[in-house]
Order: sequence, then C-alpha cells, then structure tokens
Amino acid sequence: MIVVLKPEATAEVATELLDRIAKLGLRPLHLPGTERIVLGALGDERVLATLDLAQHPMVESVKPILAPYKLVGRELHPHDTIIDLGHGVIVGGGRFTVVAGPCAIESRESLTKSADIVKKHGAVALRGGAYKPRTSPYTFQGLGQEGLELIEEVGGQRGMPTVTEVLDTIDVDAVERHASVLQIGARNMQNFRLLSAVGRTKKPVLLKRGLAAKIEDLLLAAEYILAEGNPNVILCERGIRTFETATRNTLDLAAVPYLKEKSHLPVFVDPSHGTGIRSLVPPMALAALACGADGVLIEVHHDPKSAWSDGAQSLDEKGFEKTMHDLRKVAAALGRVM
Amino acid sequence: MIVVLKPEATAEVATELLDRIAKLGLRPLHLPGTERIVLGALGDERVLATLDLAQHPMVESVKPILAPYKLVGRELHPHDTIIDLGHGVIVGGGRFTVVAGPCAIESRESLTKSADIVKKHGAVALRGGAYKPRTSPYTFQGLGQEGLELIEEVGGQRGMPTVTEVLDTIDVDAVERHASVLQIGARNMQNFRLLSAVGRTKKPVLLKRGLAAKIEDLLLAAEYILAEGNPNVILCERGIRTFETATRNTLDLAAVPYLKEKSHLPVFVDPSHGTGIRSLVPPMALAALACGADGVLIEVHHDPKSAWSDGAQSLDEKGFEKTMHDLRKVAAALGRVM
Amino acid sequence: MIVVLKPEATAEVATELLDRIAKLGLRPLHLPGTERIVLGALGDERVLATLDLAQHPMVESVKPILAPYKLVGRELHPHDTIIDLGHGVIVGGGRFTVVAGPCAIESRESLTKSADIVKKHGAVALRGGAYKPRTSPYTFQGLGQEGLELIEEVGGQRGMPTVTEVLDTIDVDAVERHASVLQIGARNMQNFRLLSAVGRTKKPVLLKRGLAAKIEDLLLAAEYILAEGNPNVILCERGIRTFETATRNTLDLAAVPYLKEKSHLPVFVDPSHGTGIRSLVPPMALAALACGADGVLIEVHHDPKSAWSDGAQSLDEKGFEKTMHDLRKVAAALGRVM
Amino acid sequence: MIVVLKPEATAEVATELLDRIAKLGLRPLHLPGTERIVLGALGDERVLATLDLAQHPMVESVKPILAPYKLVGRELHPHDTIIDLGHGVIVGGGRFTVVAGPCAIESRESLTKSADIVKKHGAVALRGGAYKPRTSPYTFQGLGQEGLELIEEVGGQRGMPTVTEVLDTIDVDAVERHASVLQIGARNMQNFRLLSAVGRTKKPVLLKRGLAAKIEDLLLAAEYILAEGNPNVILCERGIRTFETATRNTLDLAAVPYLKEKSHLPVFVDPSHGTGIRSLVPPMALAALACGADGVLIEVHHDPKSAWSDGAQSLDEKGFEKTMHDLRKVAAALGRVM
Repeated sequence: MIVVLKPEATAEVATELLDRIAKLGLRPLHLPGTERIVLGALGDERVLATLDLAQHPMVESVKPILAPYKLVGRELHPHDTIIDLGHGVIVGGGRFTVVAGPCAIESRESLTKSADIVKKHGAVALRGGAYKPRTSPYTFQGLGQEGLELIEEVGGQRGMPTVTEVLDTIDVDAVERHASVLQIGARNMQNFRLLSAVGRTKKPVLLKRGLAAKIEDLLLAAEYILAEGNPNVILCERGIRTFETATRNTLDLAAVPYLKEKSHLPVFVDPSHGTGIRSLVPPMALAALACGADGVLIEVHHDPKSAWSDGAQSLDEKGFEKTMHDLRKVAAALGRVM
Repeated sequence: MIVVLKPEATAEVATELLDRIAKLGLRPLHLPGTERIVLGALGDERVLATLDLAQHPMVESVKPILAPYKLVGRELHPHDTIIDLGHGVIVGGGRFTVVAGPCAIESRESLTKSADIVKKHGAVALRGGAYKPRTSPYTFQGLGQEGLELIEEVGGQRGMPTVTEVLDTIDVDAVERHASVLQIGARNMQNFRLLSAVGRTKKPVLLKRGLAAKIEDLLLAAEYILAEGNPNVILCERGIRTFETATRNTLDLAAVPYLKEKSHLPVFVDPSHGTGIRSLVPPMALAALACGADGVLIEVHHDPKSAWSDGAQSLDEKGFEKTMHDLRKVAAALGRVM
Repeated sequence: MIVVLKPEATAEVATELLDRIAKLGLRPLHLPGTERIVLGALGDERVLATLDLAQHPMVESVKPILAPYKLVGRELHPHDTIIDLGHGVIVGGGRFTVVAGPCAIESRESLTKSADIVKKHGAVALRGGAYKPRTSPYTFQGLGQEGLELIEEVGGQRGMPTVTEVLDTIDVDAVERHASVLQIGARNMQNFRLLSAVGRTKKPVLLKRGLAAKIEDLLLAAEYILAEGNPNVILCERGIRTFETATRNTLDLAAVPYLKEKSHLPVFVDPSHGTGIRSLVPPMALAALACGADGVLIEVHHDPKSAWSDGAQSLDEKGFEKTMHDLRKVAAALGRVM
Repeated sequence: MIVVLKPEATAEVATELLDRIAKLGLRPLHLPGTERIVLGALGDERVLATLDLAQHPMVESVKPILAPYKLVGRELHPHDTIIDLGHGVIVGGGRFTVVAGPCAIESRESLTKSADIVKKHGAVALRGGAYKPRTSPYTFQGLGQEGLELIEEVGGQRGMPTVTEVLDTIDVDAVERHASVLQIGARNMQNFRLLSAVGRTKKPVLLKRGLAAKIEDLLLAAEYILAEGNPNVILCERGIRTFETATRNTLDLAAVPYLKEKSHLPVFVDPSHGTGIRSLVPPMALAALACGADGVLIEVHHDPKSAWSDGAQSLDEKGFEKTMHDLRKVAAALGRVM
C-alpha cells in the first residue's frame, strides 16, 4: 500500500503513521519523494485492510501496489538498481558483466588455472561451487568449507569478487564470510527459509530461476530477500524444464526484457546451464546481451574433458576468448559498457 | 555394486570385504540371502571402480546395480516396503490408507473440527501444515511451533498419527518430536540437505514430487533419505507443472504404477494439490486407488469457504463422506483393504 | 447468445428472429424448451453485437453464452450426449465402452487375429489405422484404401463398429464410406479444415486431444465439428507432452471429470498412447473408468513383438483378458454398464 | 544409406545401382562428389536392409545416415542452403532477412499501408495471412482467395516477395499460384499430407515449429517436404508451449544455433508469436540475430489497436523503424549483411 501525505503533513505525522503500520506487524516504508511525504506498508493483505489510513486528516491518498512483488517491482522503485560486488565491480546501469569460472571447485591448482584464464580474457568476477546440489547422492558433492576458502583466496589474489552457491540456512554465515556474492540455485529458488536467511546478510545475492518457476514466482522469491532488508539481488535466467530434450533446459530469453520491465533489479543469464551444450553457449551469451541482460554467468574450465561436473557445457580458454571478443563487438554496437 | 560370495565363503570373509568397502568411504551393505552371502557397496562410481572385488578368491560374481537409485530400487530390495506410522496405522501391503485434514493448522478449534470429521468418516491419519511454504512473503506462513503442538495434541487425542511439513534443516528436530510423519514438500524435493537431515531421523518421511521433477528425480531424492539410514519413505505424486491451466497442476497418475514397478516404497497421491479444484478431488482419489496407489492425502476443512489457504480444493464433510463411501466400494472390488 | 422469448411470442416471431440472425451470417438455433421459446445465435462476436435483439417487444431476455465453446458446453445443452456407433453399440449414458484393436492395419490375417481376440474378451468396437501419421517419412505409412476395406470387412463380419483415423480433407469421403467412426488424431486436432470437413459427415467423430492442447483448445476443436452440424463427437484424452520422459506422454486423467463438467460430450481415454508402456495400460484403463470416462481405446495385437508400430504399448490376449476382467469388477462396483 | 563406389566404377554401374534402389520403392540419390561416385538410398529401414549393396564388386563402402532426417541433415549435404524468394531476395549465406507485415490481410487499404511501412524501413518480403487458423470457429477466419490476390498485388507493386500460410492440401495450388513462399503454421507442422503437398510445389516453404514439437520433430517435418523434391525450406522457431504464462509462448532461441549445427537449411525466428507482447519483439529480434538466425518474421500493422488479430504483438511504424535501426547496428558488428 502506498500512502501519500498532504503537503502540510509534518515529519511527526509520518512517524506516527509508520508506528501504526509497524504495530500491526506490517512493514513500514519511508519512500523518497520531492514534494510530498510518501509512506508504504507491506504485509498480509487481511491486515492491510484493517489499517484504514484513508480516513486520516493528513493523508491525501492511499493506493494499493498492484504487483504482488512490492519491493521488487517498479511501482515503489522505478529506477534500476545498481549493485557493488566489491573489488570495484559494479553491476547494472548499462554495464555488461561477465562472471566466469568452473562449475565446481576441484582443487587449488585447477581453480587457479581456470581463474587465470577467465581473468585474462576479461571476466570481472569468479564463479565456482563449493557446495554442489547433485541429483544423485553418489556423485561429487563439492569441497565444502575447503572450497569456500579456496575461492576466497584465488579470487582475492586476482582482485575478483566471487560468486558461490549456498544450499542451506546452516551454511549462510560461512558463505557470507568467504564469498562476495551468495548464489541461490534453481532447486532452492522456493526454499523460502533460505531466501529469508540470505535476505538478512549484507552480501549481494544471485537468485537463479527454478526449473518450474514462472517469472512471477522468481520475482516473489526475490521479494522474500528484499523483505528481509537486503536490496542487492541479481535475478538470473538459467533455463526452464520443458519437453525439449535436445538441450539440457530451455533458455527463456524473453524473460530478460520482461523482468527488466517489471523489476528494477539487474538480470543475468546463465547460458551454460541454460543449454548444457558447449557450442550453444557463445551464441546464447550474445543473444543475452542483445536482448538486454546485465550480465552472464559462463562456465569455463582449463580442461573441460577432465571436469568433475558439467564438462560438456564448459568452455575452454579458446572458446571463452572468442566469446569475449564477440561480446565486446556487440556491446560496442549497442552502447553497452564491458 | 552387488557382490555374491562363493558358497564356501565364511562370515569372516564377508566382514573383511565390508571393511574394505567402508575404508574407501563407500557404504557397505549386508544383504539377506538364503544360499549365498550377498554384499553391496554404494557410493561414488569412480571410487567403486577402484574396489576390484572380482579378483578376490571368495567372490563368485560382481554386478553393477543398474538403476541410479540403489536403495530405493527393486534390484537390492525386491519386496514391498511396509511402514508403521504409529497408533497401529500401517502403510503398504495391499492396504489403502487415507490421510486427511486441513491444508494449514489455523487454530485448536478449527483443527479439532476438521479432525473430528476426517476421523468419523474413516481417515486413519491427520494432516495439517504448521510451516507453510508460500509463494508470496505477504501471505499466512503457518503457526510454526504452536501448530506442531496443536496437531500433536489433536491427533494424539484421536489415536491418529500426524503428517506435517518440515521446511528447513533447523526445524527437523522439532517436527520429529511432535509429528508422526515428516513431509517434504514439492518445492523442497531437491533440497538435498533437508533430505539428508530427515534421513537421519527415526520417523517415516512423506516425500512429495517436485513440480518439475522427473520420476527418476523423485526416486533419487528418496535415495538421499535412505542413504542416511531411514528406510521409511512414502513417495507422493501431487501433480507436475505443465502448460495446462484449467487445473492447478497436472496429476501424473501413470507415475503410480511406474514407481511401484521400479521401487519397493509405497506410493501415495495428493489429488487436492494435484488438481486444485474441489469437484475433481473425488474422481481423482478413486483413480489413484484404481491404478494401484497405497493411499491418498486429501484436504478436508470443516468450512472450506473460511479456510486460510487452499479452500478451493478442500472437501467439506459431505464431500469427504461421499468420497470415502466410493473408495470403499472400489477397494472391495479390487481386493484392497481400507 | 441465448434469446428467451416472452410467453406470448408466436412461432412466427421465432421464425422472424431466426431469419434476422441468419441474414447477418450468424448461426440460428431453435432450442428445445417447455414453457418459453428459446433461440440461439452463434458467430463472430462483433457481428453478434450488432443484432440488438433485447429491444424487440417479444424478447424477454438476452444473455451471452459465457463459454467460448457454445455448442459443446452445457449452457445450451445441459444433458449428456449419447452416441450410436452402429451395430447396436451405444456410447454414453452410464455405459463404459471398450474399443480395441491393433495400432495399424497390417494385413487381413493379422487384423482378423487381433479382432477375434478383442471381440472374444468383450471389446464392442474395433480400432485400427489405415492412414498412419508418422514422425518420419521413412516409416510405414499405413495401407491406405486397402486398409479401410479390410477393417470394414473384418469389423462387419464380427458385428463391430470400426474406428479409424482420417488425416486429410481429401480422404474424408473414403473414410466415411468404410468406417463407423472417424478419428481425428492428436497431431491434427487443430487442423481446422479437417475438423470442418468431418463436421459435414454423418458419422460420429472421435477427437483426440493434441499434444500441446489445453482442455479449452480441445473443446473449441470439437466446436468446429458441431458448428458444421455433426453433434456426435467423442472427446479423447491421450496424454500431453511434458518434461517427463519415463512415459511416452503424460496422461492427464483429471481432464476427464473436468471435460464432463464443462461439456455434454462423452469422454474416452487412450491409455496406450497416453503411457507408451504395456504394463501401465491396465492400471490406467482402470483409473480412467474410476474417474468417470465413458470408454477407453486400447491397443491390442495378437503378437505385439511383431507389430509394425507401437508394439511396446500393445497388450497381448492375456493382458487384454485380465484388463477386461478387472474393468468389469470396478464397473460393477461403480454401477457402470459394460 | 550412403554408397561410395570404387574409383573404377562407371556411370553405367551407378545407373544400374540407382535402378535397383528405385525398384524396391526406395528413393535413389546421385550425390555430387569429386573423386568417387557417391549414391544414396532413402526409405523404410526394413527395405533398406534388403538392398545388400556392400556385396557388389564396384561398391567400396556402404554407411548408414545416422540422423533420422536424411536430406535435411548435414551428413549428405554439409553446405548451407541458400534460397531465392524471388524479386532478387536471397535467404541464407550470411544475410539477415527481415520479413514483415500484418498478421491477417484485412483489406487492400490496410495491407497497403502496412506494406508501405515495412518496405520503407527495410523489410525485403511481405507477410500476411489470407487463411487464418483460429482456435475458435467464431473468430475471423481470413479473407481466403481474395486475400491471396491482395497480397500478390500489393507485394508485386513494391517488388517484395510474399509469405502466406496454407492450411489445407486443397488450397496448395491456389497459394502456390499467388504467393512467393508457402508458410506451414505451427498447428500444421505434423500435418504430413500437407507437408508432402507443399513438397511437390516449386515454391520455397517456411515451416514453423509446432507448439509441442521437439527440434527433431521439426527436422523430420522438413524431411517430408524435401523427400518430395522441394529443397527450399526455411525452418522457423516461433515459440513452444510451456508452463510460463507471462508470454504467449516460450521462444526457444537455443534452437537456432542447434538447428544450424544439424541442418543446412536456413533458420528464421518469429519473435511476434514467440512472445505475444509488443515490447518484447525488438529485443528478441536482436537476440535472434545475435545467436545466428538467418532472418526474422515480424508482425507490423499501420494501426495495431485496430488490428483484427494479434494487435497486442504487432509493432507500429515507429517501433519497426527503431527495431530495424538496432538490427542494422548489431548486424554490422557481427559482419552480417542486411
């Protein structure tokens, strides 16, 4: 609910109304405005209905926020969010950001080699999984804490912020301590407890779309994070599950401009998981840039044949170099900064 | 891997081999057999390949377990699993089990009314959510701990085991303490940490199929639970997400006989979430029975119009009574015990 | 649009209004009613809007038909449609009808053997494809005209009406001449010219749901047939295409009670194409009966291993005999006539 | 099957073998080769198995064509197909071709206005539907023959080849006579009779992917056309049906580079039907270019608000002008000719 106060309303009135909102267990918002004081109230609609602020003598108008995603939508927050990942890397505002690295952190040596490759050719942040969500309990589950320390070390030495996945509320503290960006994977997109937990951290969150998630579900998942006070969420399209079996998933690129219309949050694309096929990663990375994505997440391995997971979709150095070259040409044509 | 020993192999040989398996970090299994000692080894395939047991003089044959779900499949465990829910309620072995109750636990009064209805008409276990996974952060999230205590009290007074959802590893202990069966919801079906955590409890687990989960994914999710030592898992088909919008989900009933062919675990169906439409619940419950399900999970509310969630798919007393009546007729025709 | 005339309205008034409707290119309907004359008008909504019948002194009320499928829905036609297939075989009205036979007509000998089997165990109509829609141009395309003559002969000798697919408007006459029921296959469900063409025949039509067809699309496809004057349409659920690959299609059985709520047309289920797996056909046929289907279409072959197409989903004699036995038990329990 | 003859094999031997192939009802192919005579045989695999050419003294080797789509794949035909649409418009070979126009042909005046707009801003061919496949029988079904004559006249006057849909085998002759390119719509992609019929024409065919068609199904549908002798097929990705409802369909752009790897045929994208939302058409057209499409099909209407169908996804003049401007910048960056 958006509450616009009359021109003569004072700061005391605003404080009084925000208190009334808070007392009902709703979330009070003080929204920036130049001519009028504008307040917001978020929460259970049945409780909102009892607020009855329209009657207040200092209230000019009350209007509902139409979208179900209140903080994530553009109604309360029309301007694009810009996010600082650390080490001087900024996401949003016309930049096109390339995050790259191996699927899983396998060893210091392997991670170092892959990190050197992606750094050399222009990736500005390093990705790599320490905790791996695997369909089968009998496959490699990640190095865990050791992996977190390795990516912190390797990224730090190269001045690259790091992105790594957190699987469980219990691990949120550890991942926050070691990584620059906390990734929520597709299978956890509606793990609402985990969303709330990363919403209480101070680090940016990269939120991947679930395999069966509608675009609105993704926006509502992000809302859980913002509702806890963390405004720094990057949405990530990574393919949905459809009947098509030629590709690992169906990369829904139309979600990119659609998300950017509805939300102020930056939008990334993961063409590696989105296709599952190495040769399709470069064209889909280019397509992501062309349709307005703020960045891509690309799996790169110094030796894809030997990768412990997802080797078939990882680029090698040559493939990544060529992709970066083509991305720079298209970015320049479209006036995007890389 | 299944390892059949020679007729002359002694218990000492078996122990020696199980030790070798365990030392490599694999899971050793001693399998019941009448004429031969049969052992099993489970774990990362790359490690299994190093075991090299075929060379051992007391080993007759070594064969791989073909299915990726080793403990859940019928290769190691051909006979149907039968599960004791407590209060004398047994699942499997030809029985058809009806679990019913409200979507969410709303209050003692409301839960009591709904419990009395389902008990009266033949449900043998009580369902109800204390922790609710909700798409939006602004809708009712459940009564939490208070809800757990209420369902324990209301179920206990009526001699009914209880089924309630656990959303996060942090809550596993509490839910185990208060409920008879821990439910893993569709959105958490691939929350692998949570699966492992309920695998370490002593209570049966009802595992719902995810919205984008293939049948094999469901079986592998169950494998995570069994791999931690909990053999009491009930699989539950509750509808998948497809392009059809007339129903809330697409109830994939063919999954029932398919799952029962591949796995020894009992299979339930949730026609309430599977359709989202009250009038479709009775025919789909009948269809679930007819195609071989071991039970159903039905949402019943003493006053569906006033329900805080999922009222549109909840049966009232009259609807539930009629459904139970029809289920009994079909069960009798098919020789199933209700 | 439904037009209810005043009690004093005469037959002349009805005729005058029906003429006005027809002159605008709309379809005039004279609807049976006991106390009032009730008329209908169907067609392009923009033209309907120009009719302006509410002003007429003899018109009591005008109301829109809410469903987009006007003739197929229950608003104009609340009672179940009952269809005569010939040879005394009636579909609908509480009966459960089993149509069975081979996927493709292969030869007189083969068809005869399969027909004898299905007749012996209680199928009342014979199915078999003369024109086969095949994904690849290099696979068996059916015997064509020769196949039509064979099924007419073999069915006729056994007093069984026949069901066979028509692929193209050019073949409608030939198929109408030789077969009792014209089948429209899933891939042609939105071949609107073909729908209109079978709508102009006098034979019943079995209309299969398309692989990507919503339930509403299926009802609108049937509307094309009824709009041409053929009221005898059997709807058939045969599985939709989803991400699940364990089964050939995902059989959407909830569509059965849903269709029967919305439409007066009988609803069949094809568990053979719906699952693609022999062992799943019997349980899904039972489930179809249990959830209210008016009949099933089952592929039966005297020697499934040698079948030219779809052998993996065809029942042999023993499988069909057992299925019929179980269907009779459930039908009796539910008060259905078989 | 590919048959490589020995170096000493004469033209007479080739003729003899081609005759043997043809006599079995298979399709004989004489394939271009520089050093050896290479022949092909296509058809039912059971018949191919009886050919037994490997025994022939002049045959060096016989190898199967692995892909099920023989003529469409790159095994027999490695180089890209280039197609002449008429009026000097060439598709393929690095060009990026924009085909634009209204969804339906509504009147001479309306079509003329839209054609003038698309011509002015750089579209090289004109699209427009005379026969419209509509979900409901009560919506505008197209102008039919009159529409065909209008688009021929309007396109011809502007030197633009025309693209229009054919719905039924009966109309193939008329559409071939009046249009430059015959379009097969998504709902007819597996209308195999229609595919064969357009395969017997001399005009290029634009084949749209079906709503539930796997990429392989699309390639096999094209194979039906080539198998009849028409090599000029343009494949068109136009969105598949998934659970996502925010967009009309899910545009599967990864299909573009995948199709181009597997097939020599040019690949177009239809971002208008692929998204159903005007504002998403320009970014998805850019993405199509970026991922390697040979062209796009864009709906443009001089006054989208008044369009009889699909107005919500049609661009107006300003939107089309801006889209063409951006496409030219990206095409230049990627070295593509527009």
